[in-house]
Amino acid sequence: MVQTPQPSPKPQNISVRRVFYHMPLCPFSRSLRLGFLEKRLSFTLQEERINHFSDEFFQLSPEGTFPVWVDGAFVVKSTNAIIEYIEESYPQTNFMGKTPQERAEVRRLIYWFHDKFFHEVTHHVLHEKVLKRSRSGGAPDSKKIKEAQTALRDHLDYISWLFAQRNWLGGAHLTWADFVAAGQLSVIDYLGDVPWRKHEKAKLWYARIKSRPSFRPLLLETFVGITPSHHYRMLDF
Amino acid sequence: MVQTPQPSPKPQNISVRRVFYHMPLCPFSRSLRLGFLEKRLSFTLQEERINHFSDEFFQLSPEGTFPVWVDGAFVVKSTNAIIEYIEESYPQTNFMGKTPQERAEVRRLIYWFHDKFFHEVTHHVLHEKVLKRSRSGGAPDSKKIKEAQTALRDHLDYISWLFAQRNWLGGAHLTWADFVAAGQLSVIDYLGDVPWRKHEKAKLWYARIKSRPSFRPLLLETFVGITPSHHYRMLDF
Repeated sequence: MVQTPQPSPKPQNISVRRVFYHMPLCPFSRSLRLGFLEKRLSFTLQEERINHFSDEFFQLSPEGTFPVWVDGAFVVKSTNAIIEYIEESYPQTNFMGKTPQERAEVRRLIYWFHDKFFHEVTHHVLHEKVLKRSRSGGAPDSKKIKEAQTALRDHLDYISWLFAQRNWLGGAHLTWADFVAAGQLSVIDYLGDVPWRKHEKAKLWYARIKSRPSFRPLLLETFVGITPSHHYRMLDF
Repeated sequence: MVQTPQPSPKPQNISVRRVFYHMPLCPFSRSLRLGFLEKRLSFTLQEERINHFSDEFFQLSPEGTFPVWVDGAFVVKSTNAIIEYIEESYPQTNFMGKTPQERAEVRRLIYWFHDKFFHEVTHHVLHEKVLKRSRSGGAPDSKKIKEAQTALRDHLDYISWLFAQRNWLGGAHLTWADFVAAGQLSVIDYLGDVPWRKHEKAKLWYARIKSRPSFRPLLLETFVGITPSHHYRMLDF
């Protein structure tokens, strides 16, 4: 599937200084970046390193809540709080749903991917393949990787099932459910662990969101010491 | 500290049939029940058993999202989606905060306890002490319990730190931050694992929320086969 890149979103409200403290392979940071760009918010990216947070970051988040969004004089911390804040503060484009029913379903999926998908899949893959290496913590635990792969297949089936009935994961429109699922999957895909061929519907959904301009910065980013998978940047994968 | 029980909240809107599908020692179910009673919502409790969900439950939640709140004809699934739905639908008493800043802090703490506290403390304690027993899965892993105890002490320090500066955990008013923290802690306290004596400020906060009428149903409940700790029901502990 080849899609023509759409024109870049035009940033709005450039008078307010916004800074997003993120980590490149953090799935939560990635979900938020997709949402910020889809909302057409301008912001500065400030990269943080796991276990080596900057003094500036610690002043904003002494207890260590991550990630952090600074909006003018106001500091918002933790992914879900940032999502709700962004929706409340910049309502011109709605990515949460218009009715209570729509919002309940989008939020259910946000927490499905933030909690269930992350703890069953992304956490293990990141820990075994990335964090252990950076901390000289030994070889990846193949049992953990295998369990994560099994869980990933179930989640891809679930994404396929959702996308077979809906235009986007959360319903008729693009929502945070898509950004959050894509943020998690993009990390696994960078590491080359997504069996796309066996999950055609999920692949169609991912190709659809991957071709959006908001996704481009994530595709261009390289994580030090880890080469992205062969197909990671391809819109036709 | 002895407190006189306050009169029971008077249920409102009894014409709408509301059912909450819960589990007695589920910390998320407990947080929500506190919130429902503080909101003065009437509802029927429908008990579910882990890994033995009823057919009725599976019809509402085929993918297994838990817990589930049925509000008339509308089904809301997953703790965070239910909290946001309740706040949106029953705004007469606000437990999320009035300004964007207040809400951001309350939500940060909701996810702090739902994600960090649960995965570092409650999950391990429940798994080792309750789930293993009910599944005949062997003796509790003392290493896991010890790690959870260490994390719990850090969390109690954090609660003490918050309560030293604020009237309630999330700020000047009672909010979901309190319900969510209390839901998690009440499970650990039932099992007798909270070192209250070493965390006086956290204990003061817990005594304060424990003495509310909304807490009473949780204190009276007994989990089959597991006796609550000696002090679990005492308001002066």
